[in-house]
Amino acid sequence: LPAGVAETLQQNINYVWIVITAAMVFFMQAGFVMLEIGACRAKNTINIVMKSFLDFCICAIVFLFVGFAVMFGTSWKGFLGTDGFWLSSFPADHGVWAFWFFQLGFAGVSCTILSGAVAERTKFLGYLIYCALFTALIYPVIGHWAWGSFGGAFGVGGEKGWLEALGFVDYAGSSVVHACGGACSLAGILAVGPRVGRFGKDGTPRLIAGHNIPLVALGVLLLWFGWFGFNAGSSLSGSGIIGRLVVNTTISPSAAGIAAMAAMWFIQGKADVNIAMNGALGGAVAITACCGNVTPGAAVIIGLFGGIITTVATIGLERMQIDDAVGAVPVHLACGWWGTLCVALFDEKGFSIERLGVQALGTLCISVYAFVVCSIIFALIKVIVRTRATEEEQINGLDFSEHSANAYPDFQTTEQA
Amino acid sequence: LPAGVAETLQQNINYVWIVITAAMVFFMQAGFVMLEIGACRAKNTINIVMKSFLDFCICAIVFLFVGFAVMFGTSWKGFLGTDGFWLSSFPADHGVWAFWFFQLGFAGVSCTILSGAVAERTKFLGYLIYCALFTALIYPVIGHWAWGSFGGAFGVGGEKGWLEALGFVDYAGSSVVHACGGACSLAGILAVGPRVGRFGKDGTPRLIAGHNIPLVALGVLLLWFGWFGFNAGSSLSGSGIIGRLVVNTTISPSAAGIAAMAAMWFIQGKADVNIAMNGALGGAVAITACCGNVTPGAAVIIGLFGGIITTVATIGLERMQIDDAVGAVPVHLACGWWGTLCVALFDEKGFSIERLGVQALGTLCISVYAFVVCSIIFALIKVIVRTRATEEEQINGLDFSEHSANAYPDFQTTEQA
Amino acid sequence: LPAGVAETLQQNINYVWIVITAAMVFFMQAGFVMLEIGACRAKNTINIVMKSFLDFCICAIVFLFVGFAVMFGTSWKGFLGTDGFWLSSFPADHGVWAFWFFQLGFAGVSCTILSGAVAERTKFLGYLIYCALFTALIYPVIGHWAWGSFGGAFGVGGEKGWLEALGFVDYAGSSVVHACGGACSLAGILAVGPRVGRFGKDGTPRLIAGHNIPLVALGVLLLWFGWFGFNAGSSLSGSGIIGRLVVNTTISPSAAGIAAMAAMWFIQGKADVNIAMNGALGGAVAITACCGNVTPGAAVIIGLFGGIITTVATIGLERMQIDDAVGAVPVHLACGWWGTLCVALFDEKGFSIERLGVQALGTLCISVYAFVVCSIIFALIKVIVRTRATEEEQINGLDFSEHSANAYPDFQTTEQA
Repeated sequence: LPAGVAETLQQNINYVWIVITAAMVFFMQAGFVMLEIGACRAKNTINIVMKSFLDFCICAIVFLFVGFAVMFGTSWKGFLGTDGFWLSSFPADHGVWAFWFFQLGFAGVSCTILSGAVAERTKFLGYLIYCALFTALIYPVIGHWAWGSFGGAFGVGGEKGWLEALGFVDYAGSSVVHACGGACSLAGILAVGPRVGRFGKDGTPRLIAGHNIPLVALGVLLLWFGWFGFNAGSSLSGSGIIGRLVVNTTISPSAAGIAAMAAMWFIQGKADVNIAMNGALGGAVAITACCGNVTPGAAVIIGLFGGIITTVATIGLERMQIDDAVGAVPVHLACGWWGTLCVALFDEKGFSIERLGVQALGTLCISVYAFVVCSIIFALIKVIVRTRATEEEQINGLDFSEHSANAYPDFQTTEQA
Repeated sequence: LPAGVAETLQQNINYVWIVITAAMVFFMQAGFVMLEIGACRAKNTINIVMKSFLDFCICAIVFLFVGFAVMFGTSWKGFLGTDGFWLSSFPADHGVWAFWFFQLGFAGVSCTILSGAVAERTKFLGYLIYCALFTALIYPVIGHWAWGSFGGAFGVGGEKGWLEALGFVDYAGSSVVHACGGACSLAGILAVGPRVGRFGKDGTPRLIAGHNIPLVALGVLLLWFGWFGFNAGSSLSGSGIIGRLVVNTTISPSAAGIAAMAAMWFIQGKADVNIAMNGALGGAVAITACCGNVTPGAAVIIGLFGGIITTVATIGLERMQIDDAVGAVPVHLACGWWGTLCVALFDEKGFSIERLGVQALGTLCISVYAFVVCSIIFALIKVIVRTRATEEEQINGLDFSEHSANAYPDFQTTEQA
Repeated sequence: LPAGVAETLQQNINYVWIVITAAMVFFMQAGFVMLEIGACRAKNTINIVMKSFLDFCICAIVFLFVGFAVMFGTSWKGFLGTDGFWLSSFPADHGVWAFWFFQLGFAGVSCTILSGAVAERTKFLGYLIYCALFTALIYPVIGHWAWGSFGGAFGVGGEKGWLEALGFVDYAGSSVVHACGGACSLAGILAVGPRVGRFGKDGTPRLIAGHNIPLVALGVLLLWFGWFGFNAGSSLSGSGIIGRLVVNTTISPSAAGIAAMAAMWFIQGKADVNIAMNGALGGAVAITACCGNVTPGAAVIIGLFGGIITTVATIGLERMQIDDAVGAVPVHLACGWWGTLCVALFDEKGFSIERLGVQALGTLCISVYAFVVCSIIFALIKVIVRTRATEEEQINGLDFSEHSANAYPDFQTTEQA
């Protein structure tokens, strides 16, 4: 038995593990689109499908030609990768391919988060331009800061990003993926404004109910399923560590779903389906950064707070007349911050205030960078093509105004607004 | 190459195998909720989503703190596990985590079976209490009897339960998971009574048709997909044995789907979609106990009978005015019994009457225990909160009466009853 | 450490890999049924569910008793396998089981392709007979020609089929699975004729819109998810090669989706959802044959053309008054041809005209054989039972006329025709 055999076998185990978990992360695309369809009105369904489907296609091509290199190429002072554009020079059995596929899944998730936040009033073409620029300019830059060296084990780059060098830890991306997407969502919402009819002239919020709750449920369960790949796959190796990662990814969302439902039941006097679902997602976002260094007992607490944070942030945003169609900001931004801090707060090896500072600095820098660059992108897009659908387009529905089609031609539908 | 390297590599293969198949088992939750939504009326959709989602959340937390220890802890005379509450003392790379995650999936499946049986007339809060008690008092006790020693290979417990010690074999849980959930379903149905309008005053059954057949189809295919993880994952090791497990898990449901459709076509003169689907699930339940010790030729026969048993039991329950909203009792209880007996009837190593006796004893004890304890639990819940929705609540739909919401606000719906 | 340990470990990695990717291929059944439901009218939903569900059940049983042996048994002059009927003689840990399960998934995909093409006007019983004969007489014969030796590594057969012997390469089945299913689809469409109302008396096409676009989106994403298993699983080994297979399976559909949407946007002036989705599937079909020997740069080009071919073929078929209800012929036949040629056109080791000739010959022979035998089968079925539903049956919908049921009894539906 030659010396390298055991290494090759372990590598093969890792390839299988990475590729399958990456496919699960890809599958989260189906979760996002089902959730967003269900949470919006029937008249915008095709538009949501088109956005969510094409954003992944565009993200994949841009990540191939630009994003991956910026994220994992040879580092320029810890801020940017500078080589590895277009994978074609690597041989067919090189480790970089599986790594690329896994990382694309993450980029795709981060990219699509904004889609739901600005749903039902954003122009299709403008959104597609956003996706291309997000994948080239926002996500991979942030990714380089926190995960720049991760390609080293797969034969690309290998130097640490500046946040990584400070000791910042974000195991599977509470900040890199979720707070980033959530901060962009907030910027996008502020750029396009609320949906027609969402707030009265005096600011009173009016409920715009999701039109297909089974699809919301399906979407959330698809996302949770994919999240096991998302968090446990981030080990990038098939070994004993993956067990606790999935346990924590079970416990925190479960606690969060219960907490969010209970909190809203207490506040509103009924068990609300949307907050229970979003609460669980908030718990999943929260455990994403820290699933590798906390116990399941801590995961219960992280989840309980994640659920409550989701609930409070949802209510708070509505009071501020910020119209987040699916609750992307509470789930991905607020719980992304929380999860990033939990890395320091609940580390099984003990708490240190310096570490908490680094975590806070990291998630702050990531959120600010994403928010600012996304705001600039939306301002630029507005110059080229419109970003906001007109009142008439919104009332007719984007399916009619953008795609001349009807998602449910055999059903009699009633207009909510 | 040190001596333990091969063992470590095989363990790593096993971890990957267990975690991925466990995620597939988790995904069966989506199958159950889609199936139940589709098979019930539109006006109870949100209630079904809430039940099916929260039951898993509660099950996960209770299994963490209580259920797992009762099932796999150090045995008290083969009846109960007694230690291992709360996993937090195990190190991060310990084998117990993957094992816990896999076992939780099974507990979650068994827990959610009752949901569909008592759908459309059961109070939300009462159902949640049932789920907590099921996961603490019913499932893990039964599980200890039949599978108590299975944790030994993962460093917890290891002594045999009393059924296991008698030679009882239930490879992946025809009895432990399915007959258990099915017996609880029967107890629950008898406790809450039939839906308003299901039977006329003279006992004539009236069809309450499922409102969304695509979701039924999606649910059944999700369940079948998950079942490959359920049965083949029960090997708990990635090795040559897993191939035949999935082949049998393909053949038996296929034969059962054909048989159930043909039987109902013969009886009713039409090819009925619900019985074809439920028949296939019955075939899956039947092969669950015996997928490890029968040939695919036997799987054809096991499936054919499974399909026919499902059909006959469905007709029989209706005649007895037992209102099982999704057919949980025919699928999980009747085919659970059948599959458990098939372990002895179709063993490729030959038939023995003693073995058949042990199998019959095991499935009987499991079913009786589950039925009795579940009946007590429902009686207790009735004292604290209601279990049955009033006639008015049922007519308005549980979405309105329990959650003040509408699952399909953009669609014009018609009331079946 | 004994000599065979490393081999056993690698084999176990392969078993895990094959079984999981095969389960993903099985899951494509859910993708096909969701896509077909969504792309057709509400009144034919149950019929579609029944067809798509039972075709897999029948395919599994026929593949067990006949198809697998014809495809992978000891070869008769490279044209047919001749032994290995019914697997029951193999021991439980034999490699053949995992291989069978993987191959069944492919047979099931190829079998179900016709379902969508002839939807909304084909009799249920006739379709089921087709499925049995397809799995016995069409698919395994073609499969033997191109892949006959593949069972050798798993202890069955091992001699090359005649196309294989010529050097024909079809990595995961652009021809064997997709062009085969697509050619059968074309034969079926010509046999049953267009749907009532699809073309006016003067031949003017009339749009029959799909009734549930969310299910189309779900179906396409399920198919794409499964395709990672389909293409990368075709390695039949868990090793370094699988990374590039999934990268190519990401890039080509992404490029194709963008190209098809852009092409139709240019032609029709709107971003059409159906063509974007079908374009992506066309890109997936195209990369299927060549994912193992092209770079991702080539995959971009293969995908772009795949998307455009899908668009042009869709428009062309409509002009020829060929009524393909879901676009199976453009996606599976046209892009199947394209992908098979791409093996020679874009081989990273360079182009050779001889090789292109072999590829063209192979896909032509496969398509002609499938088309001719399928035409004969449909002619025979027409003698025994009807194949085409009457005008009245079509207007009432097949759910009513074939199954006396309604897929959406709680919704108010409007008839498109």
